[in-house]
Amino acid sequence: MKIAKQYVSEAAEYLIRTNELAAQAFQEVRSSILNNVTPGSNHFILNCTSKNCNGVVPVKERCYQILEEEFEWYREKPLTYFHEDAQKGGPIDVYKEFTTERSFFRAGLEFETGNISSAHRSMNKLYVGIKKGELDLAMLMMPIKKMSFYLTDRVSNYEELEPYFLLLDKVPFIVFGFDAEEYSTDAPLLPKGKDGMSPRTIRKWQSS
Amino acid sequence: MKIAKQYVSEAAEYLIRTNELAAQAFQEVRSSILNNVTPGSNHFILNCTSKNCNGVVPVKERCYQILEEEFEWYREKPLTYFHEDAQKGGPIDVYKEFTTERSFFRAGLEFETGNISSAHRSMNKLYVGIKKGELDLAMLMMPIKKMSFYLTDRVSNYEELEPYFLLLDKVPFIVFGFDAEEYSTDAPLLPKGKDGMSPRTIRKWQSS
Repeated sequence: MKIAKQYVSEAAEYLIRTNELAAQAFQEVRSSILNNVTPGSNHFILNCTSKNCNGVVPVKERCYQILEEEFEWYREKPLTYFHEDAQKGGPIDVYKEFTTERSFFRAGLEFETGNISSAHRSMNKLYVGIKKGELDLAMLMMPIKKMSFYLTDRVSNYEELEPYFLLLDKVPFIVFGFDAEEYSTDAPLLPKGKDGMSPRTIRKWQSS
Repeated sequence: MKIAKQYVSEAAEYLIRTNELAAQAFQEVRSSILNNVTPGSNHFILNCTSKNCNGVVPVKERCYQILEEEFEWYREKPLTYFHEDAQKGGPIDVYKEFTTERSFFRAGLEFETGNISSAHRSMNKLYVGIKKGELDLAMLMMPIKKMSFYLTDRVSNYEELEPYFLLLDKVPFIVFGFDAEEYSTDAPLLPKGKDGMSPRTIRKWQSS
């Protein structure tokens, strides 16, 4: 896929410029989008037969798989702040701790597959992770409006959440708006829900 | 009803202490909760026959009616920032401009009747209103968990959103958690949806 739109807060921009681990986290998440391609092709081709004809979950799973397998990110990292009380907030979707001899850096990412309200909740959950000192950089990825038209009904899109990004100015926060490189009525349809997803063991975070 | 729980951000606390119009706005919203009583009684009695047995909308409408009729608040004030594009964010539920010879103060309020995701969106919408300089004080009211058990299924409650209030420390923001004074299996059931609501003309905000 391609990154059609991108929000990088002032705070995140400074971090990426001054901290090599922040820059690495940013690049790894970018790669998971850019390397998410249609099997047998060098780019992402979305079926555009009709509104809502594709599921969004396979798009998410492919990005997460790249992060897990190529870059060793973990899935489902709970925030200590929530005391594993899922009512207060579920785990962070994808998480990685970067370490060098001299430094330590934690990045968290969510791929939003819910409606716009749900996107607000994801955004606030990541913000809480930053505010409580459990994340150093937060990232959110979502389809742009054009692409979301052909995905699961009511899935939130970048443009819908964009008016709220100003709340994140001072927070190290990045939002990616991804898009397919090509739209075709011949492309394979992406299955909805869990149907057609090949079973895969996720690299789940283990609390020590 | 009574105010069982209350979050007043540092910024809101300072405002209420130093600005009489802020204090007035705060007291008027408090009154709309405290004066919301069961007809023929001097307090609020909630039917507790079974989980989700009451609708939440009548509770909201009664608070709003008090604000409109006793305190001259307006309904449905759009934020200029959203350019009346409801996709970006709907209007502020209830709004009032307070003026004296020397000062001008704008307060906005939402009564959350949706699920927890929707509560995050309401919170962020009010926060945007503050950040863009269209509101001076934001308030949100919601039932506490105990009361929400007997209201519309999945309506969000104060305790669910509470872990996120720390995002509002520096924002002039207040959240009220209200509760019934009495629970009884003999109390009249509150209708769900629009059923049984007597038609009433709302005091809608007119853009000049």
